[in-house]
Amino acid sequence: MTSLLESALKCENKNRPPVWLMRQAGRYLPDYRALRERHSLNELFHNSELAAEITRMPVDLLGVDAAILFSDITTIVEALGLQLDFIENVGPRISPLIETPDDLKIITPHSVEEKLSFVKKQIELLLPTLSVPLIGFCGGPFTVASYMIERSHREKISATKKWLYNDPQTFHHLLELITEASIEYLRMQIKAGVSAIQIFDTWASALAYPQFVEFSLRYLKQIVDALRETEIPIILFGKGFSLFAHDLAKLKPAAISFDWQKELIHLRQSLPSHIAVQGNIDPYLLLAPRATIRAMTERLLDSMRHEMGFIVNLGHGVLPETPVANVEFFIDTVKQYTAEPLFI
Amino acid sequence: MTSLLESALKCENKNRPPVWLMRQAGRYLPDYRALRERHSLNELFHNSELAAEITRMPVDLLGVDAAILFSDITTIVEALGLQLDFIENVGPRISPLIETPDDLKIITPHSVEEKLSFVKKQIELLLPTLSVPLIGFCGGPFTVASYMIERSHREKISATKKWLYNDPQTFHHLLELITEASIEYLRMQIKAGVSAIQIFDTWASALAYPQFVEFSLRYLKQIVDALRETEIPIILFGKGFSLFAHDLAKLKPAAISFDWQKELIHLRQSLPSHIAVQGNIDPYLLLAPRATIRAMTERLLDSMRHEMGFIVNLGHGVLPETPVANVEFFIDTVKQYTAEPLFI
Repeated sequence: MTSLLESALKCENKNRPPVWLMRQAGRYLPDYRALRERHSLNELFHNSELAAEITRMPVDLLGVDAAILFSDITTIVEALGLQLDFIENVGPRISPLIETPDDLKIITPHSVEEKLSFVKKQIELLLPTLSVPLIGFCGGPFTVASYMIERSHREKISATKKWLYNDPQTFHHLLELITEASIEYLRMQIKAGVSAIQIFDTWASALAYPQFVEFSLRYLKQIVDALRETEIPIILFGKGFSLFAHDLAKLKPAAISFDWQKELIHLRQSLPSHIAVQGNIDPYLLLAPRATIRAMTERLLDSMRHEMGFIVNLGHGVLPETPVANVEFFIDTVKQYTAEPLFI
Repeated sequence: MTSLLESALKCENKNRPPVWLMRQAGRYLPDYRALRERHSLNELFHNSELAAEITRMPVDLLGVDAAILFSDITTIVEALGLQLDFIENVGPRISPLIETPDDLKIITPHSVEEKLSFVKKQIELLLPTLSVPLIGFCGGPFTVASYMIERSHREKISATKKWLYNDPQTFHHLLELITEASIEYLRMQIKAGVSAIQIFDTWASALAYPQFVEFSLRYLKQIVDALRETEIPIILFGKGFSLFAHDLAKLKPAAISFDWQKELIHLRQSLPSHIAVQGNIDPYLLLAPRATIRAMTERLLDSMRHEMGFIVNLGHGVLPETPVANVEFFIDTVKQYTAEPLFI
């Protein structure tokens, strides 16, 4: 039987929409926090058994309709010869940083299969034990580049923007290196058995429109085109992707994942019917009283109740301070939803 | 003779578009930095003579087509009985903060004319000496509220979002207090002689769409409606306002100011012809080589060359590290622009 997620990605779902959450295996889960007390993030990412255990947590506890690899969008830099650490409350730290075009020579592409074999192993451990589809992922090349460049990654990504305006050619070179490795990385994940891929170009919307086209969209297209032959469904995600919905649709991904800034039904109606939409609850809603969580969730579900190709998700990751009970309540609200019959 | 700015705001401009820049009187100007060495920001804002001198700086040095009051969007809180300081490299610090609904009782509305008379005086000092129109302004109530609530204002405005989801009623009360004071504040500015008003609801786009309508748009509408009888042209600005263009247009402002995430010509063409558009150069462009500044600026001007109601600006404020020479070059590029004749 085809899973809810796979049906939705084909825009063929008939029943309730599937629901999963970005960062569903994260700090808001007590079991995850317990593991984190004994292991650094770096250990958890590299230890395939523990990573698989974390990936399974929200499936077992919350009954979400998809699992997503426990990994980070910056993991790919290890296949480019760089070191990756995670700093508490700050995020990934890549060393050495690639701060100037001169630093490009530090980058030495390795075999992804070899350097990131722990991700392949996580997938192999997960597949026999999972009751729901497994989503693989990577970062969008532009977003990964911004993490390689910025000393302290904020949404402003100043150094990244300065580089691309001042020396677009070398910036393209950096993006090409990341794109090649990312394609190899996703091919490895697909071969290992993931059911879908999500590409997180989280910070691409910081770019002005012409630069978005030149430095983000172009490389997303390269990845999508390279994977076309595998027939894997691809979901494109970025903060603010409402802005770029039509350009992203031209890449013919299976789905686009949107944040909360536009009504999802308007985005759905403006896109070709063969492209599914994913989203778009504000993660802060899950800090609200239950009545509000229910009302806003049902508002979304009501608006989308005649649409195929709809995957319920947040517009960005679950916030670490979210009460687990609220996440559970949200998931249950989606799963128990039955639209009132519509009298037109 | 009607100024370029006023013609553009009426969508009646025939010649080149007017150009001014958000934060055009700021740290990138050596004269401003020299003043800042001798005076705190607080002194500069409260000393009408010095503030007027700063407001004039970019007009004299760069030849911009409009001046904008040297003030801050948080100034209004002084009329609500709160104290305002500015911390180097951080921004405004309001004390006491309004962190919970209980803190609302701290707010004590005073006479704006009395508490903010230094702004009125700045306008009175400026008008006889300015060759270009003077723009007055205030913050959007939602954005001002976020500065009153957040300990450390980041784009995420977590505490603000938590409040509005958990206790919308008291949050509305806060917004009403700010809105009333803002209307009084703008009326004072208009009476003193400003030629146009810009309302900066900078962070409203952090909200999910339904919350944008409820907590931002509604109060922008109250202000615009209250000032309708004065016939003052109003420009609405917010980061990410491309997302909300159609809702903002329903408020019938004179203009909407957009950031760089969409092509301005597409926004122009999707809006009623009586609403002018302002924008939308990425401030980081002004850190690029001159050839790039010229190319991207002419790209914008070319795309808009048949449009009335166009004001050239950045999508957000001038960055402090911007070389003055680049700003000058950008302004000159706009002023010297003559479109190639169009052969269709």
